[in-house]
Amino acid sequence: MDFTTAAALDEGLELDDRADEARKDFFVVKDGECFAGTHLLVDIREAEYLDDITHIDRTLRKCVEAAGATLLSIDLHNFEPNGGVSGVAILAESHISIHSWPEYGYAALDVFMCGDAMPQKAVPVLKKAFNAGRVDVQEVRRGKGMVG
Amino acid sequence: MDFTTAAALDEGLELDDRADEARKDFFVVKDGECFAGTHLLVDIREAEYLDDITHIDRTLRKCVEAAGATLLSIDLHNFEPNGGVSGVAILAESHISIHSWPEYGYAALDVFMCGDAMPQKAVPVLKKAFNAGRVDVQEVRRGKGMVG
Repeated sequence: MDFTTAAALDEGLELDDRADEARKDFFVVKDGECFAGTHLLVDIREAEYLDDITHIDRTLRKCVEAAGATLLSIDLHNFEPNGGVSGVAILAESHISIHSWPEYGYAALDVFMCGDAMPQKAVPVLKKAFNAGRVDVQEVRRGKGMVG
Repeated sequence: MDFTTAAALDEGLELDDRADEARKDFFVVKDGECFAGTHLLVDIREAEYLDDITHIDRTLRKCVEAAGATLLSIDLHNFEPNGGVSGVAILAESHISIHSWPEYGYAALDVFMCGDAMPQKAVPVLKKAFNAGRVDVQEVRRGKGMVG
């Protein structure tokens, strides 16, 4: 496993022992660096179904599942006249957001997760669901130096 | 004004003429570059009131107003036992999100806005509202090359 958590390490707990906690606010320890969460900025292009709010809702739920995260709420808005969708899935581990411009086959997504969730697992789900010709991912580590 | 919009320029419309549109999906043209929106990754440290959901709600609304954006919905969640708050304000121009770790005086915010909204105006609002000792802002231009 690439990800472990500072909280779990500090307290000598197994991750499974903490699965019932409402907030998954573990820190991520990766490559010797401790930070609050991994934030992926995902831009998809040459993509389809970006005006289909039902498909987008279903896809965000699949991303949450693939990443091993916990969905708290989801709120999507459909815009006229272009059919674009803006919305966010709020997670126990942070959030996934989407803003789509279907007329350009483009959407800007964020996949931000702390703890032992695996945001990278959402990327192939998005590529497949929107039949995207191009996917660009920029990874930002949030909250570096927050502890220690 | 630093920001103008490709849609407005293309069609020779005044911005005010389009104020009634539900979706503010103009592109941003700045420094000769055309892109979908400005995404600020804002990390605040040595900050206070990060467990006060009412204060956070009020502050996000102030940010929306300062940026000249339009609020569509706001959804905040309070976590136990640390009192952290996760939530998102969805805007006609994209979103503002917050995830706070009050026990570390830290919060990760995103201020993502397209069109002629001014996300930078939210930064001093956040610094003051949370009495933050340190504010780090990373600006990412989303959707570069989306058109033209």
